[in-house]
Amino acid sequence: MRIAAVRVTPIAFADPPLLNSWGVHEPYALRTIVELESEEGCIGLGEGHGARSVAEAIEAAREELIGHDPWQFPRLRALVKNDSAYSILETACLDLIGKTIGRRVCDLLGGAVREEVPYSAYLFYKFSNEVNPEVEFVDLSPGEVRTPEALLEQAKAFVARFGFRALKLKGGVLPPEEEIETLQRLHDHFGEGYGLRIDPNAAWSVPTSIRVCHELERRQLRVEYVEDPTEGRDGMAEVARATRLPLATNMCVTRFEHIADGFRKGSIRVLLIDHHGGWQGLLACRQLARVCEALGWQVSMHSNSHLGISMAAMTHLGAAIPNLDWSCDTHYPWAKDDVIQKRLEFHEGRMRLPAGPGLGVELDRDRLEELAETRRRYGRERRDDAGEMRRFVPDWQPKRPPLVVFQGAFP
Amino acid sequence: MRIAAVRVTPIAFADPPLLNSWGVHEPYALRTIVELESEEGCIGLGEGHGARSVAEAIEAAREELIGHDPWQFPRLRALVKNDSAYSILETACLDLIGKTIGRRVCDLLGGAVREEVPYSAYLFYKFSNEVNPEVEFVDLSPGEVRTPEALLEQAKAFVARFGFRALKLKGGVLPPEEEIETLQRLHDHFGEGYGLRIDPNAAWSVPTSIRVCHELERRQLRVEYVEDPTEGRDGMAEVARATRLPLATNMCVTRFEHIADGFRKGSIRVLLIDHHGGWQGLLACRQLARVCEALGWQVSMHSNSHLGISMAAMTHLGAAIPNLDWSCDTHYPWAKDDVIQKRLEFHEGRMRLPAGPGLGVELDRDRLEELAETRRRYGRERRDDAGEMRRFVPDWQPKRPPLVVFQGAFP
Repeated sequence: MRIAAVRVTPIAFADPPLLNSWGVHEPYALRTIVELESEEGCIGLGEGHGARSVAEAIEAAREELIGHDPWQFPRLRALVKNDSAYSILETACLDLIGKTIGRRVCDLLGGAVREEVPYSAYLFYKFSNEVNPEVEFVDLSPGEVRTPEALLEQAKAFVARFGFRALKLKGGVLPPEEEIETLQRLHDHFGEGYGLRIDPNAAWSVPTSIRVCHELERRQLRVEYVEDPTEGRDGMAEVARATRLPLATNMCVTRFEHIADGFRKGSIRVLLIDHHGGWQGLLACRQLARVCEALGWQVSMHSNSHLGISMAAMTHLGAAIPNLDWSCDTHYPWAKDDVIQKRLEFHEGRMRLPAGPGLGVELDRDRLEELAETRRRYGRERRDDAGEMRRFVPDWQPKRPPLVVFQGAFP
Repeated sequence: MRIAAVRVTPIAFADPPLLNSWGVHEPYALRTIVELESEEGCIGLGEGHGARSVAEAIEAAREELIGHDPWQFPRLRALVKNDSAYSILETACLDLIGKTIGRRVCDLLGGAVREEVPYSAYLFYKFSNEVNPEVEFVDLSPGEVRTPEALLEQAKAFVARFGFRALKLKGGVLPPEEEIETLQRLHDHFGEGYGLRIDPNAAWSVPTSIRVCHELERRQLRVEYVEDPTEGRDGMAEVARATRLPLATNMCVTRFEHIADGFRKGSIRVLLIDHHGGWQGLLACRQLARVCEALGWQVSMHSNSHLGISMAAMTHLGAAIPNLDWSCDTHYPWAKDDVIQKRLEFHEGRMRLPAGPGLGVELDRDRLEELAETRRRYGRERRDDAGEMRRFVPDWQPKRPPLVVFQGAFP
């Protein structure tokens, strides 16, 4: 089997003004879509990070990709050094292989241990969609969400529509005491059987992180884990020593080279894997899950704004990992658009493995072309949440430790 | 693809009287050979540990294996709890898949990073083959080897015949000072470009291990690593702290559950992987190599007495591991018999990946039946080096720490 054609399509799709410690999501999120066509006419799909540099890295390898055997992953790795570009191509190769031999991608990752993968509600404080009146967003949580009450309403909508049983709050936006109050509302409303998570993207100082954790403990909220309260493996280890709550990360351990140090320091107890970036693809993430098992780390899954090809790939990966300890993150509910023919659906907070070989999804070429046109019109070439925020707060600076230092006592 | 037939054949093959700290190899080594035949008539081969219990574990699962999809490794794992039985079946499934879809087993492990895998000379002190006059052994090193001089002659024969560039001495047999003297002879004779290893199977006490390591350092022998000088992760860690030589193991870290403790304690710097036993197969060993990479452990490969199916499987695994840091162990040169049609060969200490799909080897059914008959006549059902040694030393006890305590000064 050989690759006969490579198509790389940078796209942009509508993304609501979701807030985080860096700033706010721009009106369009960027992704890169790749099609690899074999000599036999099978097409493998890949989706990943949308920066221009990613598409360029794939384009740069195009000549050598033609004629490449999609099974030869070490050679692919040698051809494409950019991690994000590699992971998109690897996904497309696995899809192509699966479609060619009539097997699912999860089988190529060692076999499915489950047919449905659990996901969590990814809840965001946000501006009203009206700040981008020219863009049509998903009909979910359209208004401003900048209070505990409003966030609870958003959570209710997510749970009613998708059935999620874990609620992850993107924190680092309001003062810590208000974010704790938000978790309190979620805790009180949803009751037993619903887990809580908070992820301030490392915006808090170590003392603030410890204070927040202690307050969460004191309130006995059903916190599954606290994700990246502060920055760095040393800071995380300091917080970890001070709290009984498990700490999770997709920031301080994001490459295989970070693992030994994170383990020695005791920085985390949960790792959010992500096949799109520094972990270098689905095959490596399956191996990473084994690393976590060996070290006694629990496994969860990270997400960036994404569409259905990534959704399918994440689900195949989640299905192949025995020690998937927590429901996975996904931004998929926040995306109205898609590039696949039949949008994937959640049932009771879970997604079934798409039927059919490979990833089990097919490209909607018309929609792909429309989103490519959106990207051309939009013109931006890399994500810049801070720059976007300066539309609203001209002197905005991303919140990095120790910018958010909460000194007050909790009530 | 479904499995239509399962054939399990316990065999015995001639094995010279090789000495180790437990005792001596029996005149025949035991193996289990499995054939899995698909509905389409493809046959996948597996080879592994020969104890009766292994064949029984496979026989016990036979009914559920019929109709099993060989891609469903998690289900196979659930069907077969015995690690050795699982690994044989997994190898056979991978061979069957490969032969069915026309791909090599190394491709199913993520792809080959090399086409040739380096192996080491596995050197043994031994009794003369004449202690088992009724058995026909390989024509290599037939006489008694119980001195440094005799071991050097054996090493010369191995290097001349196979071109190995690493020389591994099975130690724990002679007093430590004589084994050091043996390494000195190897060092002096072979010179630059030949690495040395010694593996006393944990027969030494901690103080003896440290003394041996210090003497090896003092003599500046070209020691690649010292394998399992003493027993247990605590003892190994004590030795590791006292020497600059890397310690390796296939005894104190032999399951994923041992890894975290071994890493925390600093017990080892090299792990000898083995797909046949507690590491649970080729797919898991590929993951294990990633664990080692993450922890900064180097990777080598362990061997037990084996034939060509295992030789092929080990070579496919070695080809798929980027961080295979050391040449692999193999007992293959000590086996005269085989169950494959064309015995595999070393060239300049390396073995090329067998050509063709799957493992790239085909069963010699006549030889298989002869070795099965040998097993029936032989009658023994599990390995017992200590019992065999009592033929020669009636009060023999395996040497376990602190039985071998060397108190004298080195010259």
